Amino acid sequence: MAKSHWRIGVAGLGTVGGGLVKFLAERPDFAPAGARAEIVGVSARSKDRLRDFDIGGYRWFEDPVALAADPDVDVFVELIGGAEGPAKAAVETALKLGKPVITANKALIATHGAALAVLAEAHDVPLLFEAAVMGGTPAVKMLREAMVGDEVDTVAGILNGTCNYILTEMEARSRTFADVLAEAQRLGYAEADPTTDIGGFDAAHKITILAALAFGCAPNFAAAEIEGVDQIELLDIKLAHDLGYRIRLVASAVRADGGVSVRVHPALAPLGHPLAETRGALNALFIEGRRIGRIFIQGPGAGAGPTAAAVAADIADVMTLARRPVFQAAATTLAPFTGVDAAHRLGKAYIRLLVKDQPGVIAAVSETLAEAGVSIDSFLQKSVEDAGGVPIVLTTHASPESVILEAVERIAALPAVLERPRMLRIARV
Amino acid sequence: MAKSHWRIGVAGLGTVGGGLVKFLAERPDFAPAGARAEIVGVSARSKDRLRDFDIGGYRWFEDPVALAADPDVDVFVELIGGAEGPAKAAVETALKLGKPVITANKALIATHGAALAVLAEAHDVPLLFEAAVMGGTPAVKMLREAMVGDEVDTVAGILNGTCNYILTEMEARSRTFADVLAEAQRLGYAEADPTTDIGGFDAAHKITILAALAFGCAPNFAAAEIEGVDQIELLDIKLAHDLGYRIRLVASAVRADGGVSVRVHPALAPLGHPLAETRGALNALFIEGRRIGRIFIQGPGAGAGPTAAAVAADIADVMTLARRPVFQAAATTLAPFTGVDAAHRLGKAYIRLLVKDQPGVIAAVSETLAEAGVSIDSFLQKSVEDAGGVPIVLTTHASPESVILEAVERIAALPAVLERPRMLRIARV
Repeated sequence: MAKSHWRIGVAGLGTVGGGLVKFLAERPDFAPAGARAEIVGVSARSKDRLRDFDIGGYRWFEDPVALAADPDVDVFVELIGGAEGPAKAAVETALKLGKPVITANKALIATHGAALAVLAEAHDVPLLFEAAVMGGTPAVKMLREAMVGDEVDTVAGILNGTCNYILTEMEARSRTFADVLAEAQRLGYAEADPTTDIGGFDAAHKITILAALAFGCAPNFAAAEIEGVDQIELLDIKLAHDLGYRIRLVASAVRADGGVSVRVHPALAPLGHPLAETRGALNALFIEGRRIGRIFIQGPGAGAGPTAAAVAADIADVMTLARRPVFQAAATTLAPFTGVDAAHRLGKAYIRLLVKDQPGVIAAVSETLAEAGVSIDSFLQKSVEDAGGVPIVLTTHASPESVILEAVERIAALPAVLERPRMLRIARV
Repeated sequence: MAKSHWRIGVAGLGTVGGGLVKFLAERPDFAPAGARAEIVGVSARSKDRLRDFDIGGYRWFEDPVALAADPDVDVFVELIGGAEGPAKAAVETALKLGKPVITANKALIATHGAALAVLAEAHDVPLLFEAAVMGGTPAVKMLREAMVGDEVDTVAGILNGTCNYILTEMEARSRTFADVLAEAQRLGYAEADPTTDIGGFDAAHKITILAALAFGCAPNFAAAEIEGVDQIELLDIKLAHDLGYRIRLVASAVRADGGVSVRVHPALAPLGHPLAETRGALNALFIEGRRIGRIFIQGPGAGAGPTAAAVAADIADVMTLARRPVFQAAATTLAPFTGVDAAHRLGKAYIRLLVKDQPGVIAAVSETLAEAGVSIDSFLQKSVEDAGGVPIVLTTHASPESVILEAVERIAALPAVLERPRMLRIARV
């Protein structure tokens, strides 16, 4: 079914949708596989909202499902967002009618990707979502296509620009989390309800998708372990820096015995390490394969230009008529990945304590760690005014994570320890 | 023509060919688009050479052209190397018979890519060469497929691992160029005849290919301006470091008024910059697009594992039956890019001089620069024993390159200047 042109329906006219409309208006020559792409219908919450692009030339649909079903639409582009509701209904409608679907909806793919992949493959149509992860930086294509000649073991990086912006600003300007967040909201860099970003859920959606692509398993968002950046204090950022580290929100998927460990948590990356040097709203990713070794990729993770370019690249892929499994292996054969026991995960940790200013405290802390079999790598005692005690901070050598967590509990119970210890992991990539 | 399996002919059984044979032997399940890939015939210079993999199960061909033409071969993989001779003849034979071709041969694509692309598109078969640039790091796929939703303006990076290894070792161990090269040859990291690598020709082949992919023009190796690392002295590496820079061999392709500037030359990258921090045999690349912004990618540029994985990914692409123009636009419409006048290129420079130890010399040098309109950014005079004079080194603010080159000539003619000034460019990405 080689076509001379493809008729596109676009549901959702926010940042990404607007970027796509503008791109195709500016590039009427866009025909990477010989055929042209042309928007024929659009849908959004409000028809009359003020926009800096013209939608007068397209048919208007109140209902995205009707747009997906319209016989004049060959390719359905879903840019509404949300794991449930109209986005899901419209994508399912398009796939069931045998139409290629392109989406930037990470929540939808992370949550329902396995069932949608079965639908797509049953109807022999592509389901593409390059813009869902890292904006215009082609992490999805790299894992789906370029890494098939290898077995990937680890995918890890910085996948949420808002969190990275907040961490960067806290460090650069010595400001608290709440301060920087409020400013980011004022400037439009963070949502009014920032939970999805700062709670780590957005990064978890993205790493769930990358894990499925990397390891050929069904995305299983429920199995992701998620910790956000909202508990990060300026003090930790400063102490980490004194120890030679920078705090980043790291999303990782690691193939381990019997399962896949998919996690999002704050982690310390050594100064000079590419993750530590990824600043502001940038995204970054390591891919480690048995044959290929270690690839690092960094770029803008959001924004109208990059994300629209990613959707346009997906449109080009649709037009080549190529067929790949949505997640490396045939959708009907995909097993959801299962988590990995913390006892099996080796890692180093940063532990910050507030202790009474009295003799023997440090000895008690180090004995507790020694009894658990955790050895100390570095140790720092810092006088901080008005701290209400003496802050001490230490990093450990690699130990099973369960052992470290247990030792932290025992330290918390020491009489000289004044507040709950703060444990942060040290990044492993 | 959906096939249940594809029969592969492999010409050339060196590092890449051996890696591919081993990969397909280890992965009989390799079927990313549903069909399997199976080697049926091989060809190399010597049948009986000692190899750490078994070729007894494949038909042997003395002549790669006969392998390419054999009716049992569906896909021809050319891993012989060289812009002319049997590699070119075999690739042309396969394309004329309507067979997909995969090659790792950068010299062939940089030199004859335009004509080969016409052949491939006339016979409606893919011509793929992911392994030709950056080994397993998918720079080719990124530019050919992921960047089509944007207009790329700049592609620049480190594309030759041997040169980067030599520069890294010179700095880390304070050794001369000749010393490190001799050791690299002993260890097998550098060829017996190292001209292709250290003269910058290998990097120039690669950036010529990336330029064609990025800008949709015919590869034009003859228009590349090439300078290698063989003139780099340990003194320059040390002085550059004192000024806050590291020397790298940078390959760049920049879209400019009326043409494309494709160049390979040593350049200074600031410490902390991703190019400066790319060490050893690693490769790295910046891609800058108008919409996508700036993407950075880094990974191993050579080696059996990465390169064979890149060839395997190309095999997967062949099996999806997708068709793309070989270099962004239809091969019959491609114009070769033309060079850009040095007068139009703005850049900063590093200039090292050896001058007489007498009053007024620095004044004469800075007056010469001022007269040319070049302003000085930093200046360093360093006492070096047995230098036979006083070495001084300076960096300039951005000026047209032609102006800087002219000022260097005038400085060279000053009576107090004892040897030919050494000019190095400062990297612009």
